[in-house]
Amino acid sequence: MRCKNLTFDHVNITGGFWKEKQDMNRNTTIWSVYERFKETGRIDAAKLDWKEGASNKPHWDADTAKWIEGVAFLTQKKREPELEALVDEIVTNIEKAQSEDGYYNSYHLRLADRKRFEKRDQHELFSAGHLLEAAIAYDRATGKSKLLDLIKKYVALIKRVFMEEGSADFVTPGHAEIELALIKLYDYTGDKQYLDLALFFLNKRGACEEPAVLAKFGIRHVQDHLPVREQLEAVGHSVRATYLYSAMADAAARTGDKELKHACEKLYESIVNKKMYITGGIGSTKNGEAFEEAYRLPNEKAYTETCAAIGLIYFCKRMCQLDPTSSKYADTIERVLYNGFLSGISLDGKSFFYENPLEIDLEERQRRADFGTPVGKPITQRAEIFSCSCCPPNVSRHLASLGDYLYRYDENRIYVEQYMTSGADFGDTQLTQKTNYPFDGKILLSVTGEGKQIALRLPFRCKNYILKKNDKTVRVSPENGYLMTDTENGDTLELTLEMTPRRILSNPRVRANRGKVALTYGPMVMCMEGVDNGGSLEGVFLLDGKIEVTFDQDLGLPALLCPAIRRDFQELYAEESDESTTPFTAKFIPYHAFANRGESNMRVWIERSASGT
Amino acid sequence: MRCKNLTFDHVNITGGFWKEKQDMNRNTTIWSVYERFKETGRIDAAKLDWKEGASNKPHWDADTAKWIEGVAFLTQKKREPELEALVDEIVTNIEKAQSEDGYYNSYHLRLADRKRFEKRDQHELFSAGHLLEAAIAYDRATGKSKLLDLIKKYVALIKRVFMEEGSADFVTPGHAEIELALIKLYDYTGDKQYLDLALFFLNKRGACEEPAVLAKFGIRHVQDHLPVREQLEAVGHSVRATYLYSAMADAAARTGDKELKHACEKLYESIVNKKMYITGGIGSTKNGEAFEEAYRLPNEKAYTETCAAIGLIYFCKRMCQLDPTSSKYADTIERVLYNGFLSGISLDGKSFFYENPLEIDLEERQRRADFGTPVGKPITQRAEIFSCSCCPPNVSRHLASLGDYLYRYDENRIYVEQYMTSGADFGDTQLTQKTNYPFDGKILLSVTGEGKQIALRLPFRCKNYILKKNDKTVRVSPENGYLMTDTENGDTLELTLEMTPRRILSNPRVRANRGKVALTYGPMVMCMEGVDNGGSLEGVFLLDGKIEVTFDQDLGLPALLCPAIRRDFQELYAEESDESTTPFTAKFIPYHAFANRGESNMRVWIERSASGT
Repeated sequence: MRCKNLTFDHVNITGGFWKEKQDMNRNTTIWSVYERFKETGRIDAAKLDWKEGASNKPHWDADTAKWIEGVAFLTQKKREPELEALVDEIVTNIEKAQSEDGYYNSYHLRLADRKRFEKRDQHELFSAGHLLEAAIAYDRATGKSKLLDLIKKYVALIKRVFMEEGSADFVTPGHAEIELALIKLYDYTGDKQYLDLALFFLNKRGACEEPAVLAKFGIRHVQDHLPVREQLEAVGHSVRATYLYSAMADAAARTGDKELKHACEKLYESIVNKKMYITGGIGSTKNGEAFEEAYRLPNEKAYTETCAAIGLIYFCKRMCQLDPTSSKYADTIERVLYNGFLSGISLDGKSFFYENPLEIDLEERQRRADFGTPVGKPITQRAEIFSCSCCPPNVSRHLASLGDYLYRYDENRIYVEQYMTSGADFGDTQLTQKTNYPFDGKILLSVTGEGKQIALRLPFRCKNYILKKNDKTVRVSPENGYLMTDTENGDTLELTLEMTPRRILSNPRVRANRGKVALTYGPMVMCMEGVDNGGSLEGVFLLDGKIEVTFDQDLGLPALLCPAIRRDFQELYAEESDESTTPFTAKFIPYHAFANRGESNMRVWIERSASGT
Repeated sequence: MRCKNLTFDHVNITGGFWKEKQDMNRNTTIWSVYERFKETGRIDAAKLDWKEGASNKPHWDADTAKWIEGVAFLTQKKREPELEALVDEIVTNIEKAQSEDGYYNSYHLRLADRKRFEKRDQHELFSAGHLLEAAIAYDRATGKSKLLDLIKKYVALIKRVFMEEGSADFVTPGHAEIELALIKLYDYTGDKQYLDLALFFLNKRGACEEPAVLAKFGIRHVQDHLPVREQLEAVGHSVRATYLYSAMADAAARTGDKELKHACEKLYESIVNKKMYITGGIGSTKNGEAFEEAYRLPNEKAYTETCAAIGLIYFCKRMCQLDPTSSKYADTIERVLYNGFLSGISLDGKSFFYENPLEIDLEERQRRADFGTPVGKPITQRAEIFSCSCCPPNVSRHLASLGDYLYRYDENRIYVEQYMTSGADFGDTQLTQKTNYPFDGKILLSVTGEGKQIALRLPFRCKNYILKKNDKTVRVSPENGYLMTDTENGDTLELTLEMTPRRILSNPRVRANRGKVALTYGPMVMCMEGVDNGGSLEGVFLLDGKIEVTFDQDLGLPALLCPAIRRDFQELYAEESDESTTPFTAKFIPYHAFANRGESNMRVWIERSASGT
């Protein structure tokens, strides 16, 4: 048996840090996103009754589709009749609105003169892909097949128009998504025509001369600059990129295409070794929401869209299929999950970041504003909805399906990828995990049923750990990043990870981080906020010395205390020996929790002081 | 007697560092600039025979005018018949080309359909101002009055069109220059109408609604956004700004206008306390060659035009007139002279920087180029000519008139502002100065004639010094930045300044310099070049420890040796404790001498290592 993912329908997250996030999603986020989408016309877009000039101009269908998929994922674990009723109403509207030939796009159908499949920046195929993912999830969760039937009819039309007739005005989508959705449909139905259509879209990339979407960004913006097998460097819009790369990895896993696999590996390395923030955020520039050249990772201007963080998780999850024995993809998933993904949603579950900067300098922003320079993105406070509100339902559907990321398995071995209190059913074996991770480093596992080799991923490059089996220390060295232990029915494992705070350096090629350190605690990148540290952070320098671990009761999260100094002088230049500093204790909180206590300065990367106090 | 400047006709720089620069200018630069200007049609532009489509399209007259002024300044000290002959030929051409009514602009006259004074971005008044400055200097140096007569006729036309008739399509110049030139003419002739015309132009600023020059930069680009007395923050094109502020200071000194003086003081503080590089360079962005908001001073993108450095010197020189007892303006002049001005010309005197960046990172530029991102300005090597070649003749005329900056005096006191081996004649008193400054800190002065109080400026905020009079130590405390000593005929003074290398910090509000230090030696800001330090400078961190002073024989300049480490690792992020470093001795040379040994990496501001080796 090929190593495969244990899907979230076989995993229950039953306690701890992520259970609270999942509960928040079920009780708050899914509802809050619905309300905002209702207010802004997204939910009722399928009624096609919006008139030009009215407020709440509907946005594209993908937003609502992602929300439906989130409802489906929640429903898969526990039925939610109220939410289902809301979905069913939308499905009824879609059924009424859908064209005879299967076409469905509420934006295009509402406007009689709108030509179909004319411009690839209209997100028709992107929305179709998300509707398809939603339809599959809803069918799987509820057995209600109407939406899937409708969308399959639409897919048949897409196949005819793009693959058979070639009658659309473009060939490859402006925003990847349909490809991975089609492979999902292939997996769900076993019908190879859907894989073929996905491969069609993938293989046409870089082969045709098509107009650039948003010409100012160039053809790389939509990853159509080269055939997919020749795409070895991550470029262009970072969400489009990771969705495309996910589909490429999916395709390579299903076809055994080695060239495609090679491209995926290079793209992964390009991202993770040269273009990824320490938070796992990607897409450093607002200009096209895009990857920049290697090592350009500005902090205060970091764009790092929440959807791009999710896209990177998707890509990594699929890379595990291609390289099942390596822990590196799960390492990256963990980095993104605890940092650049989770920063996208507020602690109360109601508001969101589209961009996730690594620094907020309110004084600098004020200086720019006073000077008349547009301050612009990133914003400094989360919002409940955006004009392009792709991130909120993406966060919601991702939290609802988080169980997908905990375990992989083959006949003889279970890989424990993420540490969350949970129960998992592998058929012949059941695994129970209990942990306070990431608050502390102790993880308990118990095995029931058929014994397997358990491969425990060593997270955050942890070097000091103790592994016990049935209370006796087991001495094993990590292999490809995993600690492997054979187990029998009834065995318990206890893994204790050293959680000492760390000072992390960035590659010196990263201009923005030279001479600076970031602090981490377990998998969490930490940050300083002005609200904890006397307002301005412009003159803060960290000192050597012990970093103390503490707990912030208000946030309910670990915090770190690090010796620091503050420099402030009015002149532009001063001799170092003349300059006085004020020592203080700098407080750090987890990055993902920043901007939950009003507008505040924030920094992840902080200068070191060489001169001490 | 009001404190005044000792003009360079009374000062002979007779040896040392700056004598070599002046000789280079006389023997090489003035000729080299002429040859490039001849090749590019600038010299012959006055013949009006250039035809559309021919190569060497002439640029505006200001370039040639500045070159003429340079020749005049050289001639003032020692006649140069060959150069004079070249100037006389140009003057003959101008005489032939000039319109009956006095108008002269080779660009406009060449094109029959070109309307005069239609657009203020055509630099007509800018060129007129430089022609006027050149004409005054040439008349003064040679007694040949033809050029001045011609240009006075042009000035009469300008007065009529702008001040009397108001018949031009704009009111205030697009690039300040005519104002300060008119005040020079007023000083030279004593004719108040020229001061009045200068005041007219100054007082019209901010009072009319005129189209922005280069609309994308806005009206601040040309400092026409507010009445001059309300301009308190340095904004817009940095050369235009400093030329305007110079004229404002000139006007305030001659009229006693306190509001204007107050504006000048605020503008000076705005520049020096918030917007000036450590090199004295100003105008941080290529975007409009402009000042940005306070504390935005990027190093690798620093635009800091050579002409802006010269403009800042001009402004400072004039501020001394308004505030004669303060040394701060001379401090800034010294900062600019030894650094951001002098970096504008190569050591061989033939090639120039228009922009003077504080960092060159060739690896980063290559990464950007490989990624397809335009690398653009600043350039990394000096050139002999630019399409807009304002800087080369500006450097030349400035070097030729350097004697202007050494001394100020009133009835009882002589201020020694800059330390250069020189003889100075104050009429009743003669002063002789001998020094190897800036190579060492010893300065000898001898007084002949009537004894005066000598005020020696303490340069580069030097704190440890020994002052001797006739070989006996004199204990005096600095007063407004000066050491005051009474002298008699025949007295000698010996000032010894401690020249220990220094580590300078930047205000922590300057994002680009946080956590970094710059090294200085005396008045010279130092820099690291790749050619001395193993190529890449991306991973270099300086350590604490003694900085050794040495001498670079090839460059003929002092150099510093500082303990350092080099970091290099391939990963994007690494734990600090895991990371190995290579110790080495970092070599620094004076910033002004960078880019004289081929294309090389260069940095002024360097990170400190907190962790040592």
